[in-house]
Amino acid sequence: MKILIINGPNLNLLGKRDSNQYGSLTLTDIENLILKEYVNDEFSFFKSNIEGDIVNQIQNAPQKFDGLIINPGGYTHTSVAIKDALEIIEIPKIEVHLSNLSKREEYRQTQITTQSTDGYISGFKENGYLAAVYLLKKLK
Amino acid sequence: MKILIINGPNLNLLGKRDSNQYGSLTLTDIENLILKEYVNDEFSFFKSNIEGDIVNQIQNAPQKFDGLIINPGGYTHTSVAIKDALEIIEIPKIEVHLSNLSKREEYRQTQITTQSTDGYISGFKENGYLAAVYLLKKLK
Amino acid sequence: MKILIINGPNLNLLGKRDSNQYGSLTLTDIENLILKEYVNDEFSFFKSNIEGDIVNQIQNAPQKFDGLIINPGGYTHTSVAIKDALEIIEIPKIEVHLSNLSKREEYRQTQITTQSTDGYISGFKENGYLAAVYLLKKLK
Amino acid sequence: MKILIINGPNLNLLGKRDSNQYGSLTLTDIENLILKEYVNDEFSFFKSNIEGDIVNQIQNAPQKFDGLIINPGGYTHTSVAIKDALEIIEIPKIEVHLSNLSKREEYRQTQITTQSTDGYISGFKENGYLAAVYLLKKLK
Amino acid sequence: MKILIINGPNLNLLGKRDSNQYGSLTLTDIENLILKEYVNDEFSFFKSNIEGDIVNQIQNAPQKFDGLIINPGGYTHTSVAIKDALEIIEIPKIEVHLSNLSKREEYRQTQITTQSTDGYISGFKENGYLAAVYLLKKLK
Amino acid sequence: MKILIINGPNLNLLGKRDSNQYGSLTLTDIENLILKEYVNDEFSFFKSNIEGDIVNQIQNAPQKFDGLIINPGGYTHTSVAIKDALEIIEIPKIEVHLSNLSKREEYRQTQITTQSTDGYISGFKENGYLAAVYLLKKLK
Amino acid sequence: MKILIINGPNLNLLGKRDSNQYGSLTLTDIENLILKEYVNDEFSFFKSNIEGDIVNQIQNAPQKFDGLIINPGGYTHTSVAIKDALEIIEIPKIEVHLSNLSKREEYRQTQITTQSTDGYISGFKENGYLAAVYLLKKLK
Amino acid sequence: MKILIINGPNLNLLGKRDSNQYGSLTLTDIENLILKEYVNDEFSFFKSNIEGDIVNQIQNAPQKFDGLIINPGGYTHTSVAIKDALEIIEIPKIEVHLSNLSKREEYRQTQITTQSTDGYISGFKENGYLAAVYLLKKLK
Amino acid sequence: MKILIINGPNLNLLGKRDSNQYGSLTLTDIENLILKEYVNDEFSFFKSNIEGDIVNQIQNAPQKFDGLIINPGGYTHTSVAIKDALEIIEIPKIEVHLSNLSKREEYRQTQITTQSTDGYISGFKENGYLAAVYLLKKLK
Amino acid sequence: MKILIINGPNLNLLGKRDSNQYGSLTLTDIENLILKEYVNDEFSFFKSNIEGDIVNQIQNAPQKFDGLIINPGGYTHTSVAIKDALEIIEIPKIEVHLSNLSKREEYRQTQITTQSTDGYISGFKENGYLAAVYLLKKLK
Amino acid sequence: MKILIINGPNLNLLGKRDSNQYGSLTLTDIENLILKEYVNDEFSFFKSNIEGDIVNQIQNAPQKFDGLIINPGGYTHTSVAIKDALEIIEIPKIEVHLSNLSKREEYRQTQITTQSTDGYISGFKENGYLAAVYLLKKLK
Amino acid sequence: MKILIINGPNLNLLGKRDSNQYGSLTLTDIENLILKEYVNDEFSFFKSNIEGDIVNQIQNAPQKFDGLIINPGGYTHTSVAIKDALEIIEIPKIEVHLSNLSKREEYRQTQITTQSTDGYISGFKENGYLAAVYLLKKLK
Repeated sequence: MKILIINGPNLNLLGKRDSNQYGSLTLTDIENLILKEYVNDEFSFFKSNIEGDIVNQIQNAPQKFDGLIINPGGYTHTSVAIKDALEIIEIPKIEVHLSNLSKREEYRQTQITTQSTDGYISGFKENGYLAAVYLLKKLK
Repeated sequence: MKILIINGPNLNLLGKRDSNQYGSLTLTDIENLILKEYVNDEFSFFKSNIEGDIVNQIQNAPQKFDGLIINPGGYTHTSVAIKDALEIIEIPKIEVHLSNLSKREEYRQTQITTQSTDGYISGFKENGYLAAVYLLKKLK
Repeated sequence: MKILIINGPNLNLLGKRDSNQYGSLTLTDIENLILKEYVNDEFSFFKSNIEGDIVNQIQNAPQKFDGLIINPGGYTHTSVAIKDALEIIEIPKIEVHLSNLSKREEYRQTQITTQSTDGYISGFKENGYLAAVYLLKKLK
Repeated sequence: MKILIINGPNLNLLGKRDSNQYGSLTLTDIENLILKEYVNDEFSFFKSNIEGDIVNQIQNAPQKFDGLIINPGGYTHTSVAIKDALEIIEIPKIEVHLSNLSKREEYRQTQITTQSTDGYISGFKENGYLAAVYLLKKLK
Repeated sequence: MKILIINGPNLNLLGKRDSNQYGSLTLTDIENLILKEYVNDEFSFFKSNIEGDIVNQIQNAPQKFDGLIINPGGYTHTSVAIKDALEIIEIPKIEVHLSNLSKREEYRQTQITTQSTDGYISGFKENGYLAAVYLLKKLK
Repeated sequence: MKILIINGPNLNLLGKRDSNQYGSLTLTDIENLILKEYVNDEFSFFKSNIEGDIVNQIQNAPQKFDGLIINPGGYTHTSVAIKDALEIIEIPKIEVHLSNLSKREEYRQTQITTQSTDGYISGFKENGYLAAVYLLKKLK
Repeated sequence: MKILIINGPNLNLLGKRDSNQYGSLTLTDIENLILKEYVNDEFSFFKSNIEGDIVNQIQNAPQKFDGLIINPGGYTHTSVAIKDALEIIEIPKIEVHLSNLSKREEYRQTQITTQSTDGYISGFKENGYLAAVYLLKKLK
Repeated sequence: MKILIINGPNLNLLGKRDSNQYGSLTLTDIENLILKEYVNDEFSFFKSNIEGDIVNQIQNAPQKFDGLIINPGGYTHTSVAIKDALEIIEIPKIEVHLSNLSKREEYRQTQITTQSTDGYISGFKENGYLAAVYLLKKLK
Repeated sequence: MKILIINGPNLNLLGKRDSNQYGSLTLTDIENLILKEYVNDEFSFFKSNIEGDIVNQIQNAPQKFDGLIINPGGYTHTSVAIKDALEIIEIPKIEVHLSNLSKREEYRQTQITTQSTDGYISGFKENGYLAAVYLLKKLK
Repeated sequence: MKILIINGPNLNLLGKRDSNQYGSLTLTDIENLILKEYVNDEFSFFKSNIEGDIVNQIQNAPQKFDGLIINPGGYTHTSVAIKDALEIIEIPKIEVHLSNLSKREEYRQTQITTQSTDGYISGFKENGYLAAVYLLKKLK
Repeated sequence: MKILIINGPNLNLLGKRDSNQYGSLTLTDIENLILKEYVNDEFSFFKSNIEGDIVNQIQNAPQKFDGLIINPGGYTHTSVAIKDALEIIEIPKIEVHLSNLSKREEYRQTQITTQSTDGYISGFKENGYLAAVYLLKKLK
Repeated sequence: MKILIINGPNLNLLGKRDSNQYGSLTLTDIENLILKEYVNDEFSFFKSNIEGDIVNQIQNAPQKFDGLIINPGGYTHTSVAIKDALEIIEIPKIEVHLSNLSKREEYRQTQITTQSTDGYISGFKENGYLAAVYLLKKLK
């Protein structure tokens, strides 16, 4: 299965952020964890701090991938543009959050992009990505 | 691993509810699916429509189980009592919702019980339970 | 016609509550009033203070009854569980409130369970039950 | 018994509106239904799209009628003027809505006029008028 | 094409109102502007300060006209009655506002009637009417 | 001085309404009270339950009167149309309320029409009109 | 008649403030205006920027005065203490505001103290005080 | 004096919960503390996680007890049913909370059941119960 | 034990206020009641209508007293200054309200000062002060 | 006339989105439609998913164009940056939305960018662009 | 330059409050810091817990000072009276907060007094005063 | 000291914007002002309209700079992404706004990015940057 994993703003700095919320692995560590757990699948990792670049990637995903995993970071709560892009594409798509959003600040409770995904996983740190792959394969 | 799976109000009627939201399996179908996928683990299934009975089960879980999976159904959005019970016990605990809550009615957006779990999975119908077991084993 | 009439919390104490709001009859008086007005129909009366017991009754109603009348009392405003149960069953169902809810406290203005009924009657004290039977027969 | 039945804006177009919400009868059909069901009572039907005309009718009703049934249509949610008129008159008065308001748009949840009636009936389409007459006779 | 143009409360006083918001033309000037720009179409102009009269005109419009342009003035923000009337008729209907509503007072941001039109034009003063005719001809 | 006094919906029924709020005089009593107190001024009294008729009167007032006193009744809280009409005319204009609005229901706290008057007087029952005339003469 | 006139914070600076809102007279000018208009009554003028001093004055007023006029300035919108003091005393009491509060900032729309007065006058600048005396004499 | 002390959901687990909020005593410790401090009074202790069971106990309390102390736990914030039950019975009734609710989460600030008690005590941990008995004896 | 008891605005008028809410004793009666019940403790009573004076007293309390009881009256709901002063001092401190605040006006539901006390007692009229002393001795 | 037409995020995918809302034409189809209808004007089309790129284009527009038409897509509801850019430039500028925004999701009702345009057109699908050009020529 | 520095309630206790928020210096330490850094300017320091005293100082400031620095403490969020006083005086005026208000409790986010200053500085502890003097000299 | 100064969207157009709010200097003027006032420090100026570019700059800043000054322009109110980036880096960071935000539109009152800075300065136009440098040197 060919899977695109998109990470939004500041996720490139994982490992430097509060480990209670985000775990202690870097984004590269997480990528290796995924590659090691799912050796028979093909992954492409994209990370960007720029909202529009993420929209571009989402729009093009169906041409090259069978499924999409996205952690939109701070854009989860504000981006109607990413939400609309996710709504348009028709491959399976799953949203992952490292921390348990329901426990956090009020402004992180509004989930805009999430409404256009098949489902979401929140609170399991790096394991959330592994579960997302596990579920993408079920959704196929 | 010994796992308790609690299902709250109206989940005993799965299969009769809107399949777009909840999938087409009955609760027994889902239980069998779990047993079949995880043959080496031990599961106990509890279902009740009564808020206080669910509180009782949660309070007693740590004595007999290594982990807890709960779908509190309609109580997710209102029950401070279940939330407090989940907060007190110290085994890993995961909340599952069959439908993607972020897409549904306003009153389903307030997640009270969820704040006392390790994390939650929403929108993957029966597969949400499978992923919850998958994650419980990672959290161990 | 076989009709189930469910009364929720504190309705067993009718006659001791504010008669301006609830009328001066006891629940037994009301049951007798119904039996006397509709001698050719068959009624079953269920009352409980426990939310989950009411959910159980609703779930089982379609097997034994042609119609359901419910006064969920205080659960009207908070119970997603009762709402979901009412939504699942497919016999005609009518909600009755003794007092005129639109005149009362703010927290009684949110009507959760009502959204899953065919319709509702509010403000006519004991006569509301009589009108509910009258309407159930029209809906048949 | 002499009864005035007032229908507010757009109710003259019943039969052309969404039948799921309003039923498929025209206002004349409903009037005939009432006359046929209650042959021993005397009815006067008034319909108007003009808020002030409805206020005028309500103010004069006690001189000629024993009871009042009103479906204020869209004015239910905005008219303090109709609410005040209903509050002043002292004959029994019942509000009817064809659709189940608790299921509909947010702006239809504010019920201004309803607060000045004895009670209300919502969701039973044309049968709501029949039940209103049934109840008016109980209130007498 | 036969077009009805309805202007609501206080629009008869155009020319006396704040020209920054509404332009400096009178309603008659605007009518002449329309007639001059669209010489091959037939126009009927109706203006009233009375909500119910506007409802009446809307209800009757489909019998005589191919399209409807309405500026509901102050009723835009409060009239469920006009909204319902617009929803029922099936000819093309366009709402026009002289001023840019998004820049104005909070209470002018709630647009009730607008929800039942094909679309709306706001902020172009007298030219808004011309564009509405232009668009009605496209919608035909 | 020539003064127009406009009374809105249900004020024609003064004397039948709650005397704690509105005083015990009828509207005719109040008119006589004014005429007796201000024998050298000329008064015209207009009362209507119809929003649009009140708009018409306001629009025409400057041609015949030196000042305007208005009690918009229930329209105070909802009528953008009356507000706009008051804003356009340029004679002194004063709003009167019989009851002390700040003590009453939440929905009576929104004062739309008031924003377009010179000022307002609330809570002095019939004396409010007398004070309004007193002030109109100061504003002249 | 013996009348106490209390002016709250910053009213001692009248004449330096925005004359569109407050008029161009100083507080002394206004006091003289009152004394000149009502030569047969006895007035005591109290002004303070301190909330508690105003509470003290109100509490003691009934022992020496037949009526009270108060402009609580900025305390109108926040002072539960002044509100409670006004509620306790039983002489007639009138609140005056120089500007038309309904036209001003959102935070000036909450009127706490006003709820404990007989009524209020807003928007007539210095004339508001004259009308308050006029009304106090009617209330006597 | 015969006193019933009701403890709601999760209070059976006191001693395992955050001691900063709830103190370090178990519920049995607290019961012994009360018995030791008030040796001449008679106490009955009831605890349950089930809302409806608590309603039942409250309804029956007046037949056997002179006063009622209740800590409704998580139901404080949601239970209209318990509130209504408390309102109906006529013996003195006091609500106790171990923690200072005014300092805690937003959803714990809504106090539904409290409105039907004589008064409440919050923030004194186990001593709150002692003070409640002390006050019950004053209320007698 | 040396105890300071602070009473805020309008509490000096107890006995003249609504006895249903506040009881029928004067503040001096209450002081005598306390002195009589607790003959072995030393009390200082301070009352003021001025927010800043209360802040001053609180700041100086730890130098002379072992505990503080405060009824901030109307300042409970607005005073960040009193709240901050209470937070800074480190002796036990208890807030008392004569009436049951949870039953009263909306603006009395916001409890600012309370958040900086150990706990609070509300609804027991004069007995609330006695219970506060009882609890202060437990907190010592 | 030289006109710049800016299309924001996801508008490059028109034709793949819900045709009820957006029509069935692609963005290229719409561009051709415009070019065909207005053969004597000069158009430049810019589309981007990146908020900052759109800000750049707006800032530079006055140097090369006589007017600007913008459909900010999802940024309409969140972008203070685009709003500020539009406010700074002084050529005529019109906002277009394909769907009738007043009928859609709550989060699409907040129109930030719109406040800095001359006016807006919403609900006429591809024809909205044609009407925008029509109006730009009137505004010139 | 002659500068008045006003500190509001509880700032006299600096050094005893949470040093993370307020720093560890006392108010006297801060005054010395300012005097040492700006030896050529003349400073007057005023501190009070009483709202009205602060209003008095502000009103008189322009007669003796070239600029004003104010830290209104808890009154920042509630005092319309201080806000109005600041608005009236015409010397440069700067508001300082020791802590970063944007990070703190919800009720500290409403900034009433701030709206009448030239600008404000928040979060730099004692250095905020130094920067305020630095800026006052630029504003001169 | 090495300082990075970041300016967000539309700040490149300073000098063309409302001078009452933003002052009359261009961004280059401001840069020169800073360089002239602080000749011994080293400055790097970055400006961009693109949210993600600003996130990139912030993430890299600690490697090259001792302190950061940022004016996020319109992104202040919406960007969780910039907020998160600021939170992660550990050099001193100060937010500057040219205008006094507390006086401006409602949507500019929500300050998201500000919560992750040491402090902020608002309302002093170009001098705000100078004071920010002054404070950075104190924070060092």
